[in-house]
Amino acid sequence: MNIYDVSKKAGVSIATVSRVLNGNSNVSDKTRSKVLSAIKELDYTPNIFARGLGLNTMKTIGIMCTDSSDTYLANAVYYAEQTLRSFGYDALLCCTGNDYDNKRKYLSLLLSKRVDGIILVGSQFVSSDPAIDNTYIIEAASEMPIILVNGYLDGENIYCVMCDDRSAVYSSTAKLIESGVKKPVYFYTSTSTSGMNKLQGFRDALSDAGMTPDKKQLHLCTKNISKAKDYLTALYNEAFYFDAVLASDDSLAVGAVKFAYEHSVKVPDELQIIGYNNSVLANCTEPELSSIDSKVEQLSTTAVSLLMQVLSGNSVPKLNTVTADLIKRKTTKF
Amino acid sequence: MNIYDVSKKAGVSIATVSRVLNGNSNVSDKTRSKVLSAIKELDYTPNIFARGLGLNTMKTIGIMCTDSSDTYLANAVYYAEQTLRSFGYDALLCCTGNDYDNKRKYLSLLLSKRVDGIILVGSQFVSSDPAIDNTYIIEAASEMPIILVNGYLDGENIYCVMCDDRSAVYSSTAKLIESGVKKPVYFYTSTSTSGMNKLQGFRDALSDAGMTPDKKQLHLCTKNISKAKDYLTALYNEAFYFDAVLASDDSLAVGAVKFAYEHSVKVPDELQIIGYNNSVLANCTEPELSSIDSKVEQLSTTAVSLLMQVLSGNSVPKLNTVTADLIKRKTTKF
Repeated sequence: MNIYDVSKKAGVSIATVSRVLNGNSNVSDKTRSKVLSAIKELDYTPNIFARGLGLNTMKTIGIMCTDSSDTYLANAVYYAEQTLRSFGYDALLCCTGNDYDNKRKYLSLLLSKRVDGIILVGSQFVSSDPAIDNTYIIEAASEMPIILVNGYLDGENIYCVMCDDRSAVYSSTAKLIESGVKKPVYFYTSTSTSGMNKLQGFRDALSDAGMTPDKKQLHLCTKNISKAKDYLTALYNEAFYFDAVLASDDSLAVGAVKFAYEHSVKVPDELQIIGYNNSVLANCTEPELSSIDSKVEQLSTTAVSLLMQVLSGNSVPKLNTVTADLIKRKTTKF
Repeated sequence: MNIYDVSKKAGVSIATVSRVLNGNSNVSDKTRSKVLSAIKELDYTPNIFARGLGLNTMKTIGIMCTDSSDTYLANAVYYAEQTLRSFGYDALLCCTGNDYDNKRKYLSLLLSKRVDGIILVGSQFVSSDPAIDNTYIIEAASEMPIILVNGYLDGENIYCVMCDDRSAVYSSTAKLIESGVKKPVYFYTSTSTSGMNKLQGFRDALSDAGMTPDKKQLHLCTKNISKAKDYLTALYNEAFYFDAVLASDDSLAVGAVKFAYEHSVKVPDELQIIGYNNSVLANCTEPELSSIDSKVEQLSTTAVSLLMQVLSGNSVPKLNTVTADLIKRKTTKF
């Protein structure tokens, strides 16, 4: 039994049910009566009643992430929960998966619950793909503050904490070129704002060095060790020359190390490799991976602090940027 | 402002405050009055009021884990949340860290919230160390059902889903011995029931093969790649012979692979290595790690299903066992 059943039974939208539950006056008496009958008939006890009953805050924040078993997202969720707890707030966790309809559905669900705000963890909630509609977040923000951790969306009551991904990838690519790299391959895993910023950093560094990338140097790839390894093996087999790999996720950089091992390509002498997120994976390979530290702890704690400021009625900047660092290990010459 | 402040102000225990909030009659009028004054004075609006107000269920389950950024625990939390969601339940996440007082404090906190039950994820909540007191869980279970994912504790209203760790380690150790191993080293990371069961499996396999382990073959170690590598390097430097490493976490097995690489020890010919949890780390090393799959998805989904049964008033077994499998990759001869 949930808000969807009520919406179906009453023949009105979920937003309307939510408005009735919130005591919003912008609902006709007829509609309100339909919703209340449906609620009664279905014996539905919405959590939001708690709010309506004068408990102004349940001191609970919704945390949405696409997949809390992803190393980066798991860390982000962990730091967010710890920081919320330090402010006396509970964390309601919601793993949506990557399906757009599910993201929208879960955000609606959280709105109908007793949360005080929502943190969207990871860049996967906002797409820069024009075919994907991000208005579900803008609409949700009309009901409560929404903080994006490493995502960007312009809208009322939406606040963003981003890693300066473009500049991190730009400077790492520039360093590779300085060290003699002629044909770097770039793996990207997402067309989110963060994903596009990283890609732009790569393109800009090449462009500033007077290089034009072959389309084979830019490869969209799922976060999967074998996928990266297989792609590089295919390039190698068709004698496509490349002398560096920069990946927007450590898992793909691990795939590059494995490719090099299998084909006796010397790292970093013949192939330099840089990963992203500086996760535990970077310490597992031989040689150990140089990786861009995207400062997940700082992003999450900043996001929570911002939200606390917003909930206290303070005005805070809409966009907050954290600077990434390249952690140099053994897969780069510099 | 929380239940602790109320307890302090009223000069009574947290359990007493909780009893008053729950309308439990087993409280004297004088005590009740002290608690209610403290609540009024502190302007405390406990979440539990929601329950007291006739909202019998908030359809929320508390998930406690020590550290949701740990690969194994992150997966367990992910599958638990997904399964709870499929039953229409929310997940309130609580990362306690490993400090005993914090575990106890957070469990009390969850009891004072609007949850219907609690899932303790991972073996770290129950210690087999007699110096550590597990009664906080038994007491909590008098208020709501508690499910342990890969932990074991006997008590009313406590249900356990465990991986058959002893038998998994026993059979892997036996296979190592069959393949010619004379001196395996075992790394363990915890003295929890699960940790002790694994260790027992190792001991039993050696004993059944007529071997008595040197104390250097059994090493308690934090989940840290370098720690395992350093320990093996120390053994190597003092010429202590060993020909296999079995670790209760993949990270330590990664450390063993790194040790072997650094000292040009051939894997698996001169050193066989087996990890535990079959995490993404097992795919990162060269050669890739053989690892025991502790079936984290099955553990978590079973735990949630059990809890749903308990909440529906059905009787369910107190102890449920899931069988682990050895996933053979390149660090074992068999």
